[in-house]
This record gives sequence, structure tokens and C-alpha cells, in this order.
Amino acid sequence: MKNQLVECVPNFSEGRDLDKVEKIMDCFRGKAGVKLLDYSSDKDHNRSVITLVGEPEAIKIVVVEAMGVAKDLIDLTKHDGQHPRMGATDVVPFIPISNIDMEGCVALAKEVAALAYKEHGIPSFLYEGAASAPHRNNLSKVRKGQFEKMAEKVKDPQWAPDFGDTIHPTAGITAIGAREFLVAYNVILGTDNLDVAKKIGKMVRNSGGGFSKVKAMGIAMEERNLVQVSMNLTDYKVTPLYQVFEYIKMEAKRYGVPVVGSELIGLAPMAALIGSAEYYLGIEAFSMDQILEKRMLE
Amino acid sequence: MKNQLVECVPNFSEGRDLDKVEKIMDCFRGKAGVKLLDYSSDKDHNRSVITLVGEPEAIKIVVVEAMGVAKDLIDLTKHDGQHPRMGATDVVPFIPISNIDMEGCVALAKEVAALAYKEHGIPSFLYEGAASAPHRNNLSKVRKGQFEKMAEKVKDPQWAPDFGDTIHPTAGITAIGAREFLVAYNVILGTDNLDVAKKIGKMVRNSGGGFSKVKAMGIAMEERNLVQVSMNLTDYKVTPLYQVFEYIKMEAKRYGVPVVGSELIGLAPMAALIGSAEYYLGIEAFSMDQILEKRMLE
Repeated sequence: MKNQLVECVPNFSEGRDLDKVEKIMDCFRGKAGVKLLDYSSDKDHNRSVITLVGEPEAIKIVVVEAMGVAKDLIDLTKHDGQHPRMGATDVVPFIPISNIDMEGCVALAKEVAALAYKEHGIPSFLYEGAASAPHRNNLSKVRKGQFEKMAEKVKDPQWAPDFGDTIHPTAGITAIGAREFLVAYNVILGTDNLDVAKKIGKMVRNSGGGFSKVKAMGIAMEERNLVQVSMNLTDYKVTPLYQVFEYIKMEAKRYGVPVVGSELIGLAPMAALIGSAEYYLGIEAFSMDQILEKRMLE
Repeated sequence: MKNQLVECVPNFSEGRDLDKVEKIMDCFRGKAGVKLLDYSSDKDHNRSVITLVGEPEAIKIVVVEAMGVAKDLIDLTKHDGQHPRMGATDVVPFIPISNIDMEGCVALAKEVAALAYKEHGIPSFLYEGAASAPHRNNLSKVRKGQFEKMAEKVKDPQWAPDFGDTIHPTAGITAIGAREFLVAYNVILGTDNLDVAKKIGKMVRNSGGGFSKVKAMGIAMEERNLVQVSMNLTDYKVTPLYQVFEYIKMEAKRYGVPVVGSELIGLAPMAALIGSAEYYLGIEAFSMDQILEKRMLE
């Protein structure tokens, strides 16, 4: 199928030595079929997060190349930072954007994992959509023990790498997977009572009996004297923005608290917002093919 | 500025001889920087409408080329059809999509008009955003008298062509202009009383004291036993979908009539819908740069 687009958000375990970060970034710049959407390096986390969009084949080549560069530049035996990590290239998720589904992204993740091992000797775990067993879905479980305990952990057959037999001595092991686009969306409550936000956060999230594709917690917005339900919508096609917005409005009423607004953090696919317009305006027989920009990207 | 995108919707006065239509279409196919989004030929109207999106320079070249082909193939002295027309290429509107404003589209319209005259001897009126005088804004006023009376009309100094002195003997004269994207949006009422739709249509539209950028009328949806307020939003940035939707809901209440839904007809830019999601969800500090597809098109 032509004009497939995937997003890829590789995380590298270097956020302080910007010369090294630049050398990794160079793998993504000026490459046909690859668009560098965003990148940020965090000194405390000692980690850089890159956001790419592009054609699967082109993305595959540049990501494997960058993993090789990161392997040569980053030595995890000397790495410290606040963010958990187990590899020079720590995580590589693939996200379907257009004309490709989860299955296509799983195939892409496996190809990248195979190539990274073949070309650079980098072992990997497949995770989330690409996981080879249910207990390996969750990234934080996969990464538990971090680089320092990983050589031991992979001896357990439950945690044998999907590619490779043991970890790389300096570059560790990478989690490579496929997931849906994650929308960071917060609903703001007209109160300074953090308890209310926490209670609603608990109700709305999967682990509290709420929506299966929502992670949520209550947090304070100190400078505004308000609180918010801060969420990750892990599949906006299953649980769209308007559903959590209306649900939180409904539950906030129980505490006599109004919803005063919301926040979209970072990027979102247009369909995540257009779906909510379609709902509120009650547009009948709507198709995303009616959106000019969708047609332009085909 | 790079990555400018304009839409262009040229209308050609041929909708029956599909060999001729194909020859015109060939000007738009497989051209770098030009995307053919849609086309339709109507036998009754004897007219074909083409929707293109692309880079201004690329669009300019293919449109002037197609105007030359249409001039050679279409003889208006032998043309009949239900739709008013005055030229082989009848109308050429340019619409700003991204990284270009109305002023940029006006400049583009003038360049195309100048080139069409220089290369093919096709005269033109500039209209709407590009009009050289206020009385020449409105396309139906410009086209009044149609091809048959146009040779006489252009002798009036008020209607002197902007390019050329008289009309082309067989290809007539073309209206070339710039306008905002026109969103066709209908709001459906839960009644079969056409009077209610007509009254609300009158209130919502500019000519009835309503929104300056809205054209509206009440029409029956016979097969569903409902009525609707059928609208053209001539500048969705000034009057967004949610405003007319909520306004119609409010006024329908006066008649005890509910709004049961709405329809989006044809294409719309993503911003037209995302703006309404932003309103209903109360998203604070939202920017279109948060939309993945916008970044991908940059």
C-alpha cells in the first residue's frame, strides 16, 4: 500500500553531551521520506526523545542507523539519570498514522529489531503491540531492574531477549514495539481541592474501573489555584476526548465542582480532535476523507 | 516562504464530451507540486469542476496550461447548459490553505490572469478578493449576461476586462479571483415544517441581518420528512461551524423544534472542524501546530 505513514519516537540515553545527541540527530536530518517533528534533551533524565514521521521503509533505515550511532557513543556503565533506562537506545515505539494499522507497525518493529541485532549486535525486547507474550507488554515491567540488573534478568527464560541472547556490554538492550498514538489531555476543575481531582482521576482510569484506554491522575495547578485530571488517552479511537471530558464534567457535579477547561499537551493526530467536533455538532455520515489535509497526505 | 499551499477550483465549460475533459485533466495529472483532489463533470450543466491543491508556482503553470487547452477545445458559440458561463475556462478561484494568506492568493490570481492573456490571449475579470473595484467582487454580477452578451458588456468602462480589451471570439472571458475556503454545512431540524427552516435561514444569513460570512436557506429533506438550514460558510475563520450550529439550536427553540444533527458537504480544511472541538472541549492555549498532520505538511 502506498503513502503509509508511521510515527516513531526513539528515546536515547543521552541528554547532557549535546555533541553526541547531535550525532544521533544527524541520522534523521535531510533524509527522504523522514520528517523530524520534534526533539528534546533532558539533563536530569539524561535522555533525548525524538519524534519522527515518515514512510515505514525510510524510517526503518534511519532508526537502525541511529541505534548503531547510539551504541558507539553511549556507554551505559557510566550513565546516570532520573529516568529508568536499560539501553543506549532505550525505547523505539512505532505508531500507525495513516494507511497502516497496528499489525503493520508490529511487522516494522520486528524488522527493525532483527536489523539492529544483525547490523549492530544490539539485542531487544519486543513490547506492547509487538510483545511476544502478555507479561512482556508493559514497558515498565520489561525495563524493571534497568541496565544494571539486566544481564542477570535476561537469564530467566521469561525474560529472554526476542533478539540476541544477552545484553550488549555498554549499549544494554532496547525495547522495540508498536502502540497507538498517545494523547496527553488534561481536564481542569474549578476548585483547589486536590482530593476531588484525585478521586475523579481514579474513577476515570482503567485501573480504577474506568475506561480501559485511559491513564489518569489528579494533580494541582499551583500557580492557578486549581486542580486537574491529567490523562494519557492510550487509544483515542476507543476513548475519544469528548467522552472523558463529558464523563469528568458529570462526576465533578457530584462534588459541586465545575469543569473550567482542558489542555492538550504536545502533538495529537487531527482525527483525535475532529472526532469530538463530529460528536458535538452531530455531523451525520461524516468521513475523514472530507478533510482536505487528509487527502493532501494521501 | 516555503511550503505554501493553495487550493484552486477551475471550472471549465465542458461536461459532455469526456474526451475533451480528459485532455484538460491531463494538464493536472502527474505534475510535481500539484495534487488533483477531485473532479466532476455535469452533463446538464455542461461543465466540469476540478479541485487542485499544491504549491503556488506549480499550480500557476498547470492552470495557465489548462486554460490554453480549454480555449482550443471549447467553443462557447456552440455551448449550452443550465449553469451560467462566460468562458471556456469559466472561473478560476484561488483559496489560501497554508502558509499563504488572501493577499498571496490575490497576487497569484493576477499572475495567472496576466499569463493567460500573454500566452493564450484569454481575457479576464478579477473577482472577489482580487476584484479591481467593489462592484466587481460578486461573481454572479461579473458573469451576468453570460457569454452571449459579454462582447457588448465589456464595452461599458465599468465592465472593462482587467486583462484584454474584449472577449475571445470562442473562449469568451474568464473570472479569476481569490476567496476563502467555502464550507458547505447544513443543520437539520426535527420538523417537517419548511417555514421554520426558511425563517431561521433568513435570520442566520448576512442578507437577513445575521452573520456576515454566511449564506443560508431553508430546504426540505423529502425522503426523511425533515427540513434543514442549508448554508455556505464563506469564511469559517470568522464564523465557525459551532457558532451557526448553536445559533440555529437557540432560534429553533422559539418554534419548539429540536436540532437533530448536521451535515458537512464535500471537503473542509481540518481547522474548520478542529476549531469547533477546541470550543466544545474548552481547550486552553491550543495551537494548530499541535496537530501532527499540520506539521507533516510543513
